[in-house]
Amino acid sequence: MKQLFKPNLSLALVHYPVTNKNGKEICSAVTNLDLHDIARAGRTYGVKAYYVVTPLPDQKVLVERISSHWTEGHGGQVNPARREALGLIRVASSLEEATKAIEKNGEGRPKVAVTTARNAVDMVSHEAFRETIKDGRPYLLVFGTAWGLSPSIIETADYVLEPVLGVADYNHLSVRSAVSIILDRLLSR
Amino acid sequence: MKQLFKPNLSLALVHYPVTNKNGKEICSAVTNLDLHDIARAGRTYGVKAYYVVTPLPDQKVLVERISSHWTEGHGGQVNPARREALGLIRVASSLEEATKAIEKNGEGRPKVAVTTARNAVDMVSHEAFRETIKDGRPYLLVFGTAWGLSPSIIETADYVLEPVLGVADYNHLSVRSAVSIILDRLLSR
Repeated sequence: MKQLFKPNLSLALVHYPVTNKNGKEICSAVTNLDLHDIARAGRTYGVKAYYVVTPLPDQKVLVERISSHWTEGHGGQVNPARREALGLIRVASSLEEATKAIEKNGEGRPKVAVTTARNAVDMVSHEAFRETIKDGRPYLLVFGTAWGLSPSIIETADYVLEPVLGVADYNHLSVRSAVSIILDRLLSR
Repeated sequence: MKQLFKPNLSLALVHYPVTNKNGKEICSAVTNLDLHDIARAGRTYGVKAYYVVTPLPDQKVLVERISSHWTEGHGGQVNPARREALGLIRVASSLEEATKAIEKNGEGRPKVAVTTARNAVDMVSHEAFRETIKDGRPYLLVFGTAWGLSPSIIETADYVLEPVLGVADYNHLSVRSAVSIILDRLLSR
């Protein structure tokens, strides 16, 4: 079996600022299954942390409540595998706050790589980014909920990853599927 | 961009017979997000149909109700992309019924490939199976809900695909993530 490289990669799932169907900037609601599915995929591929980004106080409490049920509460006792996964979850008010939290680990400010289902200029292929992150420096891989990350987030990122393309022009994966596929492309053995 | 081969691949998501945490055979409940996420991934990668397998009459009605909301009802009008995805859904009482439905298309009985998170004997790698399905003959790729497909399903399959491995020995992806990753490995450009 091939040796894995140890990535220094964290995930962020952004609920604000994202766009709605009409391109308007909104704050989306946290969903339970985004926490579970993405934490499980993150743990499977060895990501360092999973930042759930929302500025709304009640939504932050919700995330803490769900994750602590599985890390400290009854859920973790009956399902240790789920505890390991949900233990990756951190709450952040903004992407900047997540970036600063990683920087505090002492390895420098992470490079921010955003994902989008749309075409953008200067996109990086998954293959190329897989090579990039082998340098062991910190990276933050960012996904948007709803209809995707706000242009303000995409424009200020260090890298924009190419969309996941299937057949023809159908390009409507759930964020849970997109995270899973991109982690597999970047980090599989 | 590389040319895609046209697979003749259908999906099945089995709710019975599957196992629970203790290895006991159970019938699991259909969930809304399994329908949506897997249909969207299936449409993205060009699968022919997505069979939701449950013997329970009320669960079959539930699947029909959800899919028709998006294919014939209001949902499809406001979200045509979702209509295309959910249009792949077929309800079947058993895996055998799904197999027969494919056979009725006139291209012969499909070969059945099952997925599992556990190790089994004579497993086929995703790479090898990607080559196998290039023959254009019908294949049915089967996923289990809950703690996975019952041994009775695995033992009678034509192919058992290797588990998706991430790092170390953590192997607890959601079925939605596993479907997405395996479709990408088998069918990506």
